[in-house]
Amino acid sequence: MARVSPSPLAVSLGDPAGIGPEIVAKCWDNRAAFNLSPFAAIGDPRSIAAVWDGPIEVIDDPREIDSAFDVGLPLIQIASAEDDMPGHPSVAGAHCSLDSLEIAVGLARSSSASAVVTGPVSKEQLYTIGFSHPGQTEFVAERCGISPGNVAMMLAGPTLRTVPVTTHLPLAQVAGELSAALIESRGRTVLRGLQRNFGIAEPRLAIASLNPHAGEGGMLGREEIELIEPAIAALRAEGWRVSGPHAADTLFHASARARYDAALCMYHDQALIPLKALHFEDGVNVTLGLPIVRTAPDHGTAFDIAGQDRADPRPMAAAIRMAASCALHRARGE
Amino acid sequence: MARVSPSPLAVSLGDPAGIGPEIVAKCWDNRAAFNLSPFAAIGDPRSIAAVWDGPIEVIDDPREIDSAFDVGLPLIQIASAEDDMPGHPSVAGAHCSLDSLEIAVGLARSSSASAVVTGPVSKEQLYTIGFSHPGQTEFVAERCGISPGNVAMMLAGPTLRTVPVTTHLPLAQVAGELSAALIESRGRTVLRGLQRNFGIAEPRLAIASLNPHAGEGGMLGREEIELIEPAIAALRAEGWRVSGPHAADTLFHASARARYDAALCMYHDQALIPLKALHFEDGVNVTLGLPIVRTAPDHGTAFDIAGQDRADPRPMAAAIRMAASCALHRARGE
Repeated sequence: MARVSPSPLAVSLGDPAGIGPEIVAKCWDNRAAFNLSPFAAIGDPRSIAAVWDGPIEVIDDPREIDSAFDVGLPLIQIASAEDDMPGHPSVAGAHCSLDSLEIAVGLARSSSASAVVTGPVSKEQLYTIGFSHPGQTEFVAERCGISPGNVAMMLAGPTLRTVPVTTHLPLAQVAGELSAALIESRGRTVLRGLQRNFGIAEPRLAIASLNPHAGEGGMLGREEIELIEPAIAALRAEGWRVSGPHAADTLFHASARARYDAALCMYHDQALIPLKALHFEDGVNVTLGLPIVRTAPDHGTAFDIAGQDRADPRPMAAAIRMAASCALHRARGE
Repeated sequence: MARVSPSPLAVSLGDPAGIGPEIVAKCWDNRAAFNLSPFAAIGDPRSIAAVWDGPIEVIDDPREIDSAFDVGLPLIQIASAEDDMPGHPSVAGAHCSLDSLEIAVGLARSSSASAVVTGPVSKEQLYTIGFSHPGQTEFVAERCGISPGNVAMMLAGPTLRTVPVTTHLPLAQVAGELSAALIESRGRTVLRGLQRNFGIAEPRLAIASLNPHAGEGGMLGREEIELIEPAIAALRAEGWRVSGPHAADTLFHASARARYDAALCMYHDQALIPLKALHFEDGVNVTLGLPIVRTAPDHGTAFDIAGQDRADPRPMAAAIRMAASCALHRARGE
């Protein structure tokens, strides 16, 4: 067993014109109430100062985070080329958000940070500066040398963890994207992630059906028979505890949730509807399959309310707490 | 305003070999705790006696229900040709369940009962005796002289009501089934149903998107732009309060639910996942668009646990309570 008190966390502020700076600052304000371990913000201090009056401790070395954390919000500085205004995204802000992300990932890759928590970015803004990934997850994967196809996006709340096999696709294209190999591969990533990030030695994975009533024996679709059941059989043959295909509508009530550690879902809304219905304020996006721990709050930049002191810091606090917990499990498991 | 104390309810027992008889009897046992108004069971008394020791009051005339209800479970007798065993469905039982349904609907059509609550039937069993409807809902619609296309299946719980536009279809066929006219028509049925069955004078309907992130401006599918937005515009032009298309994953948390009276969903699981995640024990199936009130518990015959005293009567109790409430709203509105 290696050290059980991992290094601090690196939190990228995301787009400086979004709510990222405000919610990260509010997390430091409420660090005791939210039960947060030491973290450093990575970004432009002006974006925080524009929305927050508290103390910022600009640091150069991540080893200063622990001591600085008692005094103010530790911050590793990424200067934006412009003085970004809350609610007014800019090209300079997009560069700043990308630089922050890159530095945060680098700190985790070098073990200077035990995990990365990513603040919300604007994909539209990033696309204007040549960003070519579907989102931050794929960028982080690439920086870690992992194919984006081998990572999985888990949404995790206090009583439910879900992972979609397919993500940002029109619903009509979901069935065509699915294959037994993809379901099997994603399932394996989730099972390993439950072991590494959540410390569950023998994880239980429930796999949802694509069609209503689990396809009703083929009457309401054959994907259960042709794709999902073979994937389940393959995972079971490796010794994993996998159940399904389950009718998706009866998979998410309390007594059903007690029977698995994560549910593998076939499409975006199948995974996110139950998660957000149950855990809107404390659902966390956790990327599985990476050599580092990465979490994120499951919301966007909310430019429309940035700078108005209205942003809810609880999802970011949940992401920071979960990053620390995952880092601890990894440290114990090493 | 007509009478505000409607006549009693008619509860069909469903398949005599399923859990219907047990849960209806348990509802009578717990009528005070469950806060149930008088109802009569419609079915074979032997199917109840096989699983319950309580008093059965066989009656001939529905006007006897109120007085009989204090003494025992009022029952309008449908004799099955066989002595059905719990957990062992039979052709005779299928006939009995269909006769029970028909009598219950007839009582409501003639105003001898204020509403119908239908116990669970086995479609497989019904198909063996020539039943040609997709389910009880379509049968009830036909008996009421309503085209099945003009009724809507609402799932209603204490904090959420959802209605799927399409129901029992493979997921890959959902997009092809949708049309602006269908969404508009279903929306109108729901809005009128909220007025008639729930007494909401100016109902608010939230319409969900088909695609993730509400289609992201067409990037993740065009059904929002081409089908859902025109349907919303048409309903608004009639003066209805309709919002959407909403991203489905952020439509079901507590503060979102507070902003509408019902959510119109594009497919089965989109409607049923959040409903059952939140209200598994007390979600009720309510058929809208009928001249009568009809509700049902949202579960099946559960042949596997029939006769073992293990069936949970709470969903049936919720269906009976909601039928009484809808009947009261209808009586007040007449």
